[in-house]
Amino acid sequence: MDKKPFIFVLTFQCLDRQGIVARISDFILKHNGNIITADQYSTSPEAGDFFTRIEFYLPDSVCSRKALEEDFIPVAREFNANWRIHDKSIKLKMGIFTSRLDHCLADLLYLWKTGDLDVEIPFVASNYAANKELVEQYKIPFYFIPAVKENTRESELLALAKSRADFLVLARYMLVLSADFLSDYAKDIINIHHGFLPSFKGARPYKQAFSQGVKVIGATAHFVTGKLDEGPIIAQVVEGVTHRDDICSLIRKGKNLEKLALARAIGNYVDYRVFTHNNKTIIFE
Amino acid sequence: MDKKPFIFVLTFQCLDRQGIVARISDFILKHNGNIITADQYSTSPEAGDFFTRIEFYLPDSVCSRKALEEDFIPVAREFNANWRIHDKSIKLKMGIFTSRLDHCLADLLYLWKTGDLDVEIPFVASNYAANKELVEQYKIPFYFIPAVKENTRESELLALAKSRADFLVLARYMLVLSADFLSDYAKDIINIHHGFLPSFKGARPYKQAFSQGVKVIGATAHFVTGKLDEGPIIAQVVEGVTHRDDICSLIRKGKNLEKLALARAIGNYVDYRVFTHNNKTIIFE
Amino acid sequence: MDKKPFIFVLTFQCLDRQGIVARISDFILKHNGNIITADQYSTSPEAGDFFTRIEFYLPDSVCSRKALEEDFIPVAREFNANWRIHDKSIKLKMGIFTSRLDHCLADLLYLWKTGDLDVEIPFVASNYAANKELVEQYKIPFYFIPAVKENTRESELLALAKSRADFLVLARYMLVLSADFLSDYAKDIINIHHGFLPSFKGARPYKQAFSQGVKVIGATAHFVTGKLDEGPIIAQVVEGVTHRDDICSLIRKGKNLEKLALARAIGNYVDYRVFTHNNKTIIFE
Amino acid sequence: MDKKPFIFVLTFQCLDRQGIVARISDFILKHNGNIITADQYSTSPEAGDFFTRIEFYLPDSVCSRKALEEDFIPVAREFNANWRIHDKSIKLKMGIFTSRLDHCLADLLYLWKTGDLDVEIPFVASNYAANKELVEQYKIPFYFIPAVKENTRESELLALAKSRADFLVLARYMLVLSADFLSDYAKDIINIHHGFLPSFKGARPYKQAFSQGVKVIGATAHFVTGKLDEGPIIAQVVEGVTHRDDICSLIRKGKNLEKLALARAIGNYVDYRVFTHNNKTIIFE
Repeated sequence: MDKKPFIFVLTFQCLDRQGIVARISDFILKHNGNIITADQYSTSPEAGDFFTRIEFYLPDSVCSRKALEEDFIPVAREFNANWRIHDKSIKLKMGIFTSRLDHCLADLLYLWKTGDLDVEIPFVASNYAANKELVEQYKIPFYFIPAVKENTRESELLALAKSRADFLVLARYMLVLSADFLSDYAKDIINIHHGFLPSFKGARPYKQAFSQGVKVIGATAHFVTGKLDEGPIIAQVVEGVTHRDDICSLIRKGKNLEKLALARAIGNYVDYRVFTHNNKTIIFE
Repeated sequence: MDKKPFIFVLTFQCLDRQGIVARISDFILKHNGNIITADQYSTSPEAGDFFTRIEFYLPDSVCSRKALEEDFIPVAREFNANWRIHDKSIKLKMGIFTSRLDHCLADLLYLWKTGDLDVEIPFVASNYAANKELVEQYKIPFYFIPAVKENTRESELLALAKSRADFLVLARYMLVLSADFLSDYAKDIINIHHGFLPSFKGARPYKQAFSQGVKVIGATAHFVTGKLDEGPIIAQVVEGVTHRDDICSLIRKGKNLEKLALARAIGNYVDYRVFTHNNKTIIFE
Repeated sequence: MDKKPFIFVLTFQCLDRQGIVARISDFILKHNGNIITADQYSTSPEAGDFFTRIEFYLPDSVCSRKALEEDFIPVAREFNANWRIHDKSIKLKMGIFTSRLDHCLADLLYLWKTGDLDVEIPFVASNYAANKELVEQYKIPFYFIPAVKENTRESELLALAKSRADFLVLARYMLVLSADFLSDYAKDIINIHHGFLPSFKGARPYKQAFSQGVKVIGATAHFVTGKLDEGPIIAQVVEGVTHRDDICSLIRKGKNLEKLALARAIGNYVDYRVFTHNNKTIIFE
Repeated sequence: MDKKPFIFVLTFQCLDRQGIVARISDFILKHNGNIITADQYSTSPEAGDFFTRIEFYLPDSVCSRKALEEDFIPVAREFNANWRIHDKSIKLKMGIFTSRLDHCLADLLYLWKTGDLDVEIPFVASNYAANKELVEQYKIPFYFIPAVKENTRESELLALAKSRADFLVLARYMLVLSADFLSDYAKDIINIHHGFLPSFKGARPYKQAFSQGVKVIGATAHFVTGKLDEGPIIAQVVEGVTHRDDICSLIRKGKNLEKLALARAIGNYVDYRVFTHNNKTIIFE
């Protein structure tokens, strides 16, 4: 699983029209590159939105990501595209906000340590002190930033996030980030919701599921937007339950679902496989 | 799968207290019976509601269902129970209401013919003529009862149901039965909803699922109550989807889920495995 | 779901090297085509085998499939490729062989009738007469070709298959086709095996699963090769079971799995999404 | 999830015949007990083997487990039963053997710490030193007992196991325990096999799965017997895979399956829900 040098990922999105793939693949060929894998999707082949993720490598070190991006600007301009070129040897920096429950946090830290989650973790911030020991076992900086009454000390969280994190993960973080935080941070935030959205938004979803008597429960990883639990869904994982499951066992089963959904969502995100469009996600898995 | 003679199922529900199982099993022993399988559940062992399903056989033909019921009355009275004794050699009569889409109907008829669904089907009624040929291939009476403007001709449906069906199945029946129909029929009605309840109630659930961008879709079989799509859930079946699924493919995948959920719900119901309590189901699978 | 005119699918497979995508997309662009969807896969980006499926449309009727193929020959020659161009408006002809059990057959016929399975069915041949009525309800020619002692009358089956079917489906066909049949027919044959391969090859897989006490059962759709139940796997569908499942209920649950696996495999196959390589499949779902 | 006092579990197994449930429930009633939940199963109602698990509580502390067992002896003798009465307030002691890979070990330790796995862990023994730090973070004794050449130092392992563990878990322990060890330890040993048994026994099951091109992978928790990977299966968990999964991603996905299967198996085992019979398990879930 060691990184190969000089592997890049182009993420590219524009209005669909003739010749996009030909133009991009010609660009890669002219840079002496070879496509490793390419995915594309169009919401409607004739008049829709076009998305592509192309992973390619350059056999020698002539060209940096910067230089590639520079060269690519005219191509992108032709199609008025929204795009990026990513260097796969550079890991994204994932900041984590969490609260009291630590199953998702513990799972992410473990996956990070074993290399199954290919990120850096610059910090974990929590409004509970309880997770300090767990985090510091992994030699990761831990910030205890308790919410005091109405003051959630968001400015401190924001400063941390802006200065150190390429994206944020809310690993069962129980406070709601303000609109100001979202607009000021302006990067991606992934949340795990312990319910099968769009059912069971808001508080205590397992209690809701229990009282409705559903036969399947789920967990949902999604991007955070200004609307609570309504951002684009990235991953959902489900499991059957029966009348014998009480709220305790729903919570216990749900923890596994939350861990699986969050890890799957982050895994795809950090490999540049997730696009958003019209409050939905396109995921090149 | 041929019926063995003299197999009975006791379904029994009361407030939980000491000695229920001892009393019932003693009753069966005194009738020279042997328990084949027994399931029980209590919502709370000390103060809750108690449910049991006991399948037993009598080695000889001395005792009819009627006679057994008569003998059981004093036992039931001790516990102030809600109960029935069913004779497994008697098939329940399942009336079917349907509309235009025939995938659930076709599946039920096929399962009935092969013996995988252990019921009689006294009739199929539809507000569309289209399914006539399919139904009559199976030599089952078909009633075309079109809804005319506001008149859904419920009285005809009601007369059919009351005179011939032990319970009803709505196999993608698109009209809403009135409160009068429900109270007058007063027996169980099982509906298949083409969405993962409690999400996506009402019309066009696949369209709702598509526009929400969910990553898992589902179908829900539930009992019909006066509240649309809110009756006790009997079975839910789910499947993963991706951004590549358009509404057509959601519908196509959903058809399988609907068939599976409905067949599973009916299969448990006709084997007397489904209890309802507080708008939820207890299912001894 | 109606066919759009002038939609083509290129399936293409060669040794991986630089410039393949650029060359093909340039070809499509020069024919004034637009790519609807493209998938590609390489077993190893630097030295492996490369596979692509490209669905594209031509906005006008200038070019037939034949003409396109002619034009494409030089491109294919550059890469020494194994390739085809398919016209999506032409349905593949799927011959069906079956025996006594009809659940897969009935499902395929139903899916064909509703348009969910986009094929023609030129005939059904069976070594049992029992399915005649079912097949003829759909106005599909039925051939009763009983195996007499050692004589399975393969020559008749072969004649049917060769003259009328683009590919064959064995829908619970219980006889083993000879090596001669396979080499003489020389087109694809898809079988449904009622077990989770590579476990439970050969006869009575549900009995094998029962006596092993597995907790999950499965069904496997695969291509037929000379080695019994060892051809490339196309689809596998599984479901949990418990100690309460006897062989009868395993068979009943398994029927659903078989139907789902076979329909999924055929659906992908007839949309030209299935490639084979080293006795495995690559499926661009 | 705190333990209630005076809750007992009777596990009981004998040849099926009339009156077993009546006799046992009468016994409980006479001890002033109340049944919380009862499950039963018979391999064949008339002539088979009968299994029951009955969880009950005594409202006061009059009766110890010992005293209950003493009183129960005559009942058991009537049916020539194989039985135990367990006190739910006493946790089972689960010894862990492990090797280099620590995902199952880490998961078990985490579930133990959070109380989701209701056991004591008296020790972890490993033939690798690497997991020492992980284990000791949880204040659990760690024994590094390396296998030297042919000498796996089983006598030390055996001494540990016999003196301290009610049962053993092999959490990706890569050595094979000898027949002598098994017969001398003579208590239950649960192993996690990283393949979907009975497929892929023995070494490197993910490699086997990859080269066979299966579309679903699985993990299997089972009891250890003298036959490698052939003991009674307790839990199997599966997940779909595609041609894009290489051996690395199969291993990564498989780790989740292994954790889920092992935790589920142990959870049922320590709640006295698992019976074995004819190399299969009966699990009252």
